[in-house]
Amino acid sequence: MVRKGLKKKLLPVAVMSAVALGSLQGSLSNVKAAQGGKNQAKIKNVIVLIGDGMGPAYTTAYRYLKDDPSTPLMEDTGFDPYLVGMQSVNPHDDEENITDSAASATSMAAGIKTYNGAISVDRQGQEVETVLELAKEQSKSTGLISTSQVNHATPAAFGAHDKSRHNYNDIADDYYDEMINGEHKIDVILGGGTNYFVREDRNLAKEFQKDGYSYVTTREELLNDGNEQVLGLFAPVGLPKMIDRTEKVPSLGEMTTSAIDRLKRDKDGFFLMVEGSQIDWAGHDNDIVSAMSDMEDFEKAFNAAIEFAKKDKHTLVIATADHQTGGMALGSGGPYNWLPESIKAAERTPDFMATEIADGAGVEETLERYIELDLTDEETQAVKNADGQGVTEIDNTIEDIFTDRSRTGWTTGGHDGVDVPVYAYGPHSSWFAGKIDNTDFGNNIFRLLEKGSKAD
Amino acid sequence: MVRKGLKKKLLPVAVMSAVALGSLQGSLSNVKAAQGGKNQAKIKNVIVLIGDGMGPAYTTAYRYLKDDPSTPLMEDTGFDPYLVGMQSVNPHDDEENITDSAASATSMAAGIKTYNGAISVDRQGQEVETVLELAKEQSKSTGLISTSQVNHATPAAFGAHDKSRHNYNDIADDYYDEMINGEHKIDVILGGGTNYFVREDRNLAKEFQKDGYSYVTTREELLNDGNEQVLGLFAPVGLPKMIDRTEKVPSLGEMTTSAIDRLKRDKDGFFLMVEGSQIDWAGHDNDIVSAMSDMEDFEKAFNAAIEFAKKDKHTLVIATADHQTGGMALGSGGPYNWLPESIKAAERTPDFMATEIADGAGVEETLERYIELDLTDEETQAVKNADGQGVTEIDNTIEDIFTDRSRTGWTTGGHDGVDVPVYAYGPHSSWFAGKIDNTDFGNNIFRLLEKGSKAD
Repeated sequence: MVRKGLKKKLLPVAVMSAVALGSLQGSLSNVKAAQGGKNQAKIKNVIVLIGDGMGPAYTTAYRYLKDDPSTPLMEDTGFDPYLVGMQSVNPHDDEENITDSAASATSMAAGIKTYNGAISVDRQGQEVETVLELAKEQSKSTGLISTSQVNHATPAAFGAHDKSRHNYNDIADDYYDEMINGEHKIDVILGGGTNYFVREDRNLAKEFQKDGYSYVTTREELLNDGNEQVLGLFAPVGLPKMIDRTEKVPSLGEMTTSAIDRLKRDKDGFFLMVEGSQIDWAGHDNDIVSAMSDMEDFEKAFNAAIEFAKKDKHTLVIATADHQTGGMALGSGGPYNWLPESIKAAERTPDFMATEIADGAGVEETLERYIELDLTDEETQAVKNADGQGVTEIDNTIEDIFTDRSRTGWTTGGHDGVDVPVYAYGPHSSWFAGKIDNTDFGNNIFRLLEKGSKAD
Repeated sequence: MVRKGLKKKLLPVAVMSAVALGSLQGSLSNVKAAQGGKNQAKIKNVIVLIGDGMGPAYTTAYRYLKDDPSTPLMEDTGFDPYLVGMQSVNPHDDEENITDSAASATSMAAGIKTYNGAISVDRQGQEVETVLELAKEQSKSTGLISTSQVNHATPAAFGAHDKSRHNYNDIADDYYDEMINGEHKIDVILGGGTNYFVREDRNLAKEFQKDGYSYVTTREELLNDGNEQVLGLFAPVGLPKMIDRTEKVPSLGEMTTSAIDRLKRDKDGFFLMVEGSQIDWAGHDNDIVSAMSDMEDFEKAFNAAIEFAKKDKHTLVIATADHQTGGMALGSGGPYNWLPESIKAAERTPDFMATEIADGAGVEETLERYIELDLTDEETQAVKNADGQGVTEIDNTIEDIFTDRSRTGWTTGGHDGVDVPVYAYGPHSSWFAGKIDNTDFGNNIFRLLEKGSKAD
């Protein structure tokens, strides 16, 4: 068991850069001026939920998707009642001014601006303390959940330190090796990623088990396990999208509830980060079906967190995105319509269908089986033409059907720079209100954890 | 002078549809839960500012544009410190689910959902009372300002009623003919539109003058005029974009200040609506230079309103958009950069340059005169190729230079459906906090005007 002397290398919160503190003060005066924030109860638990890529077009599109068209107003999503503001997410990078997930997650986890690709290290590569680590120092229980491999950029920025997000094995190693006060710093680790945890050179699952963790790899095992510490890995890399999952894979909501049920037993409270990881992956793929699938998965996790917080009274829930992906827009090519009906008709993702077709399934049979609407001859023919050109070409062709029918616009296969919505509930939720920066997001959590650790 | 019996036809606020009230209650409970809102001073004046088309991509892009790159954090825009939430803007239209300016302005002016094209009439074509009209009934002074023709959809929805936004002459007539308690309902009317007010069949400018209004047509005349009632029309249709204006045309900030200076003399207070109209027109044209030009024009008007409200203490300022235009994104085609340098290098809009070229000016000379950067041979050649194909083709070609250099994404020449930011300052600004609908925006103003009219 390697003790990396982590704490020595970490920049304490107290010496955070003057710039970051300046911005924090700006944010606090916003709050003071505009909101007030009545709930001043003591914070015991903090749940951060990050919809990766979930910019304002995604949250709006999801409301359109869920709308009951028989009423004049659109019904609120699970998120809407908790909107408190928006955050800016630009990185501090010499080459790029639109953030990646690593830099933005570092801002939210550690309260600093850094370069794209950085996993809770600053621009000089120096490791910086994260809010998860502070929580563990305060003897709280902690958890990380994602639908990507759980050592992917966003969770990694809360639980590891690396000069590059691409050092997946090192990041997985950090989850085990970097200890705080002699304990593993993450008690509940749920997501995908067996490829990185169970390797030829090292079997982290076995190492965790040796130290008392449960190791589960199916939904059933997760739900039947009652251990306070658990490593759950349900796929080699990322989990399937929500609408593609089998019974063996838990939903993000189930993982969230399972984590809360374990973490809440700690009398010192807990910190939990939950990521809806593949909203972003769908955006990169310009795949509106997958984007909406995993928005729903994420909404259920958010609802589970809110439900717990409402009962608990001492839990702060904060949800946001790290950035928006794809330059997605509700509307393309002129018409004043965004039409989610075709999206709702898809029972599997384009990628799922494309994989079956590439594996030999018939085009017409596959499309009929998984899409509950009559495709035109041209749409079916386009997929037939793509058949034989590889799964990516088939995938793109099926995605185009939904892009065109829904009139979704896309401008990039990368990220875009728009501000993202911030949702908050619970004690001191008003600290996150107004226009904040993602560094404010992290610094506010530090301050609230410190505040919560003091006697009333 | 025609008295159209307006009040009889109007739906009183008290019998607003149950749906709208239900939504209002939802919004109020949001506020209660999340914000609190400490400033409960009595409201005397209300200033509504609408950046037409100014969705979240525009407000973010403007921050990137104004950023000082020598600091790690981006500086706040004038808007940022006042962000309180976002609003949904979908219309209630049988054919379209993305709003136009008329339907959304009707929601904000009259608190109801209606069809695209409606100017403060409901889905049955019935005229509905607007917040400007309620203010006038309360003996407040009122004003409408826009950089489009001032009888364009957004201002029209506050000051007129028509089944179609396209009935420009009828809307201009309404501004004069529809009286409240024997008085013209709009005291200060500033913008473009001589074509619609000074016509062969009717000269509304003269009619207003006969009733005691000043009529001004240049910046100098506006600034030198001290009359409480004024009609100012500075262009046949819309005003030039900010960066194209001559000294003869006032800025939106100057019009706003001039209006406030007149309206504030009313001891009963005032209601003022200010529209940054052509942010939207720039979006329709996929013209990032013009969009940022008129974002700056609008920001200055917003700053002027805030400055007054800070001194006055009894003025509520609320700013938002009716919708976003163009599916604009910061980022296109992959790279993680949105680069505003080329936009800042443009000293005139592409449309201005294209018009000069179409009128015979040399391509190279024109581009060199108005763009402070070295264009590539390919860029210059593209404009040369467009020369002779009409001003639109030249315009589009110049716009493409800035779209490509800045890496701005566009998905449509129409509107998109994303939620838009809401900014508020002053007494009861927290009523607009959280996720609201544009009908909440209107209904909240009704309620606050009613509240303000009562004794403390």
